[in-house]
Amino acid sequence: MIFLDNASTTRLSGRAAENLLHYSTTDFYNPSASYYAGFQNAKQIMETKALLAKHLNVKFNNNIIFTGSATEATNLAIFGSVRTSWKKAVFSAGEHPSVYNSALQLKARGIEVVFVDLDKTGAIDLEKLEAALDEDVNFISIMHVSNETGAVNNLEKIAEIKAKKCPKALFHVDGVQAFGKVSTNLETFKPDFYTISAHKFHGPKGLGALYVKNPAKLLPIIHGGGQEYNLRSGTENLPAIMALKGALEECDAWQNQKLLKTLCIYFKTELKSRLNPEIPMKILEGEGFAPHIISISFVGLKGQVLQNMCDQKGLMISTGSACSSKKMGNRVLENIGYSKDEVLGNVRISFSRYTSKEDALEGAKILAECANELWRNTR
Amino acid sequence: MIFLDNASTTRLSGRAAENLLHYSTTDFYNPSASYYAGFQNAKQIMETKALLAKHLNVKFNNNIIFTGSATEATNLAIFGSVRTSWKKAVFSAGEHPSVYNSALQLKARGIEVVFVDLDKTGAIDLEKLEAALDEDVNFISIMHVSNETGAVNNLEKIAEIKAKKCPKALFHVDGVQAFGKVSTNLETFKPDFYTISAHKFHGPKGLGALYVKNPAKLLPIIHGGGQEYNLRSGTENLPAIMALKGALEECDAWQNQKLLKTLCIYFKTELKSRLNPEIPMKILEGEGFAPHIISISFVGLKGQVLQNMCDQKGLMISTGSACSSKKMGNRVLENIGYSKDEVLGNVRISFSRYTSKEDALEGAKILAECANELWRNTR
Repeated sequence: MIFLDNASTTRLSGRAAENLLHYSTTDFYNPSASYYAGFQNAKQIMETKALLAKHLNVKFNNNIIFTGSATEATNLAIFGSVRTSWKKAVFSAGEHPSVYNSALQLKARGIEVVFVDLDKTGAIDLEKLEAALDEDVNFISIMHVSNETGAVNNLEKIAEIKAKKCPKALFHVDGVQAFGKVSTNLETFKPDFYTISAHKFHGPKGLGALYVKNPAKLLPIIHGGGQEYNLRSGTENLPAIMALKGALEECDAWQNQKLLKTLCIYFKTELKSRLNPEIPMKILEGEGFAPHIISISFVGLKGQVLQNMCDQKGLMISTGSACSSKKMGNRVLENIGYSKDEVLGNVRISFSRYTSKEDALEGAKILAECANELWRNTR
Repeated sequence: MIFLDNASTTRLSGRAAENLLHYSTTDFYNPSASYYAGFQNAKQIMETKALLAKHLNVKFNNNIIFTGSATEATNLAIFGSVRTSWKKAVFSAGEHPSVYNSALQLKARGIEVVFVDLDKTGAIDLEKLEAALDEDVNFISIMHVSNETGAVNNLEKIAEIKAKKCPKALFHVDGVQAFGKVSTNLETFKPDFYTISAHKFHGPKGLGALYVKNPAKLLPIIHGGGQEYNLRSGTENLPAIMALKGALEECDAWQNQKLLKTLCIYFKTELKSRLNPEIPMKILEGEGFAPHIISISFVGLKGQVLQNMCDQKGLMISTGSACSSKKMGNRVLENIGYSKDEVLGNVRISFSRYTSKEDALEGAKILAECANELWRNTR
């Protein structure tokens, strides 16, 4: 089995698994309990937050909130910030459903919501963004790396535009596909919020984190026992948090970047060498893409059929985002300007540091063979 | 170390731990992915839901929603149900902070919120409940077992009263401290919602479940990719769900009940035999209590000091609910009618099936010794 769908989820790392088990079965005590073993676990959680802050190059100051998923974290950033006084919120058209569908909720509440078009790569169109921003804007949410195309948004530039056009607006960045793969130095774009998903970089499922520049201004969306500085109630998910710590300790974004870039090159070279040259292929590549995602359209073929054929040969790939359980067309690729056939023929390949060179090469071989076979059969 | 704070959290069971690890490191594939390994995991999740439904004696019909915590589940029941047309909501005064603080949110929105007083045991006062209910009531939330006193609410009787006074009101039951310890046959009281916490019965932390009688009428509180029938977005927490399955397979509420009752008797007998008879002790016991929680007040002593002394001798107990990270007094015990000294001198002991007879006896011995010492030192 070859797993090239690491943008949907990843295998838990060794140290993460050790911690997950240890803090479930041995040091499993409630971090809110007022005895020594509880205090120790609370301290471990604080240390994990401090380590995460270090990875984001921000000073840790009780400004990281753990949630049950990255989706909950983006929801907290949005619905914990929204006020009845809000007039306008601006999003990239490429946002993940967790942000996109939350934006639609804001719209339903009467707030003007603008989705800014993407450029040809899937990054936000900076000129259109600048045109969309004005002093009425209360909130901006732009993803760091596109889960569909791997395009990296130029957050430094976006922060500059925002500072010029609407300095008071809150700025949320969905870093789910970025963390561990590209630089996540928050100093360079100073967001108000930054969302992370543990299971996308060999951490545990069921754990998100939200960096919050100014926690005092945020309201909770889940009410209860007052955990997480009263911003996210519910018993702290200690084992998952400690598993995240293990994953963080093993995660070197710079090393990953180099490794993933190499895997990408192996994969694309092998694919191109084996693919029937008659098949029109559209592949997003060049500067400005994260190293772990390749979006490929085999124009004239059906991506879903291709995915099934690959699956039967032991290769797992995606035909869009597996985060979304309801798929109709693909609003992101359509916004980029893909034709209907380019959308239908699209597949997404994604790597992690657990992908071997052999897997990348064999995966490319299987995908090429399946595409060639499907091309022959549908002519 | 003797752990007698199982109402705050429990050790993960063996089969649960196996599943947690297996579905994190081997079959870790995203259940929303459209390849075989993803479908298989989606199927496993459905099977877990069906098994949980069986434990609740309800027909499984896509009516169980997994959440990131029981707190999120109660929030979903409340905030996913609330409509602008709501007039009145009724709660027991003993609700856990996840329900209690959500009720205060409803109040802040202009809904009339009534907290019905408790009787001497910590169960809801049925006469006062009947008086509080009328046709204006849209929502009722009453916990199954009190996390403070272990009192079991008579849900069959409550359901009868509700059917008579406000048949259209939605009825939520917080079953967090009940599941696995008392009968959770939902057929007998037919709630609209029932909340469960996995980590309270040797399942994983970071996983709650909400039984929903009529999912079509519920709205999500977290928006995104549309998982959980579009009622709770976010990548499914597969490893935790499978760990819950393991815990469910090992959980026999009837066996537990018998075992826990025995532990309670051992503990109380040993405590009473060793305690200085001069110390005024108030202990809630008799019929109508869950078998795993004992609430004891050593009148004239400080529960927090007692807890610290026990902690230093290796015994972990609680001075209230560890679910709440901010404690001031104890609103539940005060509502029952405890004097200030009875509240201050309160500790909570809680067992699980992993508590041995030796632990129960040794725990009682340590607690008695600490109380005796503190009594001597403070006379």
